This record gives sequence, C-alpha cells and structure tokens, in this order.
Amino acid sequence: MTRRSTLTTAPEIDRLIQLLAKLPGMGRRSAQRAALALLKKREALMTPLSEALAAAAEKITACSTCGMLDASDPCAVCLADRDDAMICVVADTADVWALERAGVFKGRYHVLGGLLSAIDGVRPEDLRLAGLIARAGNGRTREVILALAATVDGQTTAHYVAERLAGVGVSVSRLAQGVPIGGELETLDEGTLFAALQSRRPT
Amino acid sequence: MTRRSTLTTAPEIDRLIQLLAKLPGMGRRSAQRAALALLKKREALMTPLSEALAAAAEKITACSTCGMLDASDPCAVCLADRDDAMICVVADTADVWALERAGVFKGRYHVLGGLLSAIDGVRPEDLRLAGLIARAGNGRTREVILALAATVDGQTTAHYVAERLAGVGVSVSRLAQGVPIGGELETLDEGTLFAALQSRRPT
Repeated sequence: MTRRSTLTTAPEIDRLIQLLAKLPGMGRRSAQRAALALLKKREALMTPLSEALAAAAEKITACSTCGMLDASDPCAVCLADRDDAMICVVADTADVWALERAGVFKGRYHVLGGLLSAIDGVRPEDLRLAGLIARAGNGRTREVILALAATVDGQTTAHYVAERLAGVGVSVSRLAQGVPIGGELETLDEGTLFAALQSRRPT
Repeated sequence: MTRRSTLTTAPEIDRLIQLLAKLPGMGRRSAQRAALALLKKREALMTPLSEALAAAAEKITACSTCGMLDASDPCAVCLADRDDAMICVVADTADVWALERAGVFKGRYHVLGGLLSAIDGVRPEDLRLAGLIARAGNGRTREVILALAATVDGQTTAHYVAERLAGVGVSVSRLAQGVPIGGELETLDEGTLFAALQSRRPT
C-alpha cells in the first residue's frame, strides 16, 4: 500500500525539527513536540532560546588552561585563589559543576573533553592531555586526582592518563569506589559491592 | 552541613539551560546535557539551531482559515485543490502531519489549537471554534469529521464541538474503530488511521 502525502511541511519547521532531533535524548517525535511547543510560545520561549544560543555561541569558550567552558578565558576557576598543589581531572565541564556544587574540592581542575572510547572513536589525541602533562610538571602541582566515571571508558581513560603522568613526578590518585552515601546494600550491583569490599578500611 | 560553591556558572550557560529545560520532556539534567552538547558542536548545531529558531519564529504562522502552522497564510492545505465538502477537525498541527503522512484524507482541516481541559484550564474560548462553525456553514461543507484523541479531554472536546455544530446543518462524525483507548492521534500508524476514518460514525 503506497500512499503519497499531498502536504509538505514548511521547510522552516522541518529544519527546526531536524536540528532539535540532534540534541542528546531527543528523537524525531520529541523534536516535533518541542518544535510545536516552541511555535506556540514564540515570545516566551522561541525567540529567547534563539538569542540565548547565539549569545552562548559567541561568549562561551573553553579555557585555554584547564579546558572548562566559561564566559572568560582564563575561566573563573583558573582566575580564583585556589590550591595550586592539586589538579582534579574530569571528563566534562558538567563534572566540574557537580564537584563545585558539592563544594568538597578547593584545588584546580583539568577538563579532558571526553573519555577514551573505542566505540565512539575517541582517541588520546582527541583529549586535552598535553596541557595536563605540562600543568602537572609546572613545579607547583603535587597531586593529580583522576575523577572519572566508574565505567569501562572512564577506567580505561584513568589508566591511560596515569601512565602518561608516570614520569612527571607528581602523585596520581583516583576517586574511591564503594557504597554511595544513602545507598542500600540490596540495591547495589555486584561490581560496586566487589569494589567496596576490596577497598574496605579498618573502622 | 552547608557548603558553598565558590564557582558561579557563566550566566550565558545558565540562561541556555533554563530555557532548554522548558521544552517538553526536558528536565534540568537533560537540559544541561543538551547545553554542553550544543557548546561542543558550535558550528554544526548551536549556531544553525539559533538561526532555525529565528527563521521559524519569523516565517511560521497559524493559517487564518484553518489554524495550521505553516510558512504561508493561507496554508498549503487551504491553498491546495482538495475536497471542500469535508472538514477534519484536529487538536494540533502535528495531527494534520500524521493524517497527511498516512495520506488517507483528501478534504480540508481545522486545527482547534488544543483540547478542552479542566486540569489545564483550556476553555471553549481558547479554541478556534468560531472559525470552524463559520466554515461548516459556508454552504460547501457537508461533513465535519472530529479526529480527536480517544482520551477524556479529546472526547469531551468532540462532544462539545458536535453540540456547537448541531444547528449548522452538516453531518458530524468522529473517528471510532481503530483508535486505541488512551492513544494520541499523532502516534498512530497509517493503517489504524485509515480504519478509523473508514469506520467513522454519525454522532
């Protein structure tokens, strides 16, 4: 059964749906819903979003020191008065936000810009590694903390970065793995339970 | 335990996340992920999306005859050579797209712009009803087909519209068999839409 549509959607709407569908977590259907919601809220949402995108595209840049996305270069963290002896290595700017929300780290950051991934084709030269090695060897850095995800890609990357830092003369550590605060034992996967047991400490 | 963050996210990023979070299906977390994806694909996605939003905001308008969102007024369907004897009443422009994709209807459309809803506070005066009644009574229309969702709001709206059309002298039918209970029109396959059109019943 072949039936031809006699209606072509306006190219402006098609293009909008196509671009929205490229956002993470969006499919064709949700992009269509988003496009219609935007067209219904033109003044309140559509025009402001267009302007916010243009403003961010113009103003936001990756810090040339640490790689974090910010409105200034050097970024707010690199400009701040913080502990130069420690560099916390993360995959993305969102990880810096998460750590800063927690307020538990007062040193510097280094944003790799991703994780090594065979599947996604992310290689060492795609990450901000040369800058990290230079910073680690600047004479003020004593410790590099690898704060990378407890996933295959995260741990592969941590291993690779640790090897690259081996000759620099700084100590390299990584986040502890174990039971998250508030976590019920029965809800944890076996990998987490295994890590928590292996890294058990005397009370 | 109170810990203060020493870092403030750039206002341009904050604003972008806030606006993205207003899209249907987006939360704070997915908006943050979308904002970072956009900042990583500035040339390929961020700037094009900003421009597509501006273009759609400028060009796309609701057809003053049928209410469909399109780049022209009258819209492509109202300008096309189609069967004037039938008007298919739908809630939203996406429903027109769904029916046109199926290619099973060759008459005119009327887009109400929503469904009556006590919860969302959508009243009869919020819908494009006066225009529908005028079009139904134009002498060329013989049948009005209510193609509204098989939900409480959809059936309430169908009932209300049928009552308003009672004195106009056109037959009023609605989609019946084939529409699954609780189903939204825009998600249906063309076979289901075809069956529902074929099995339409007088109200």
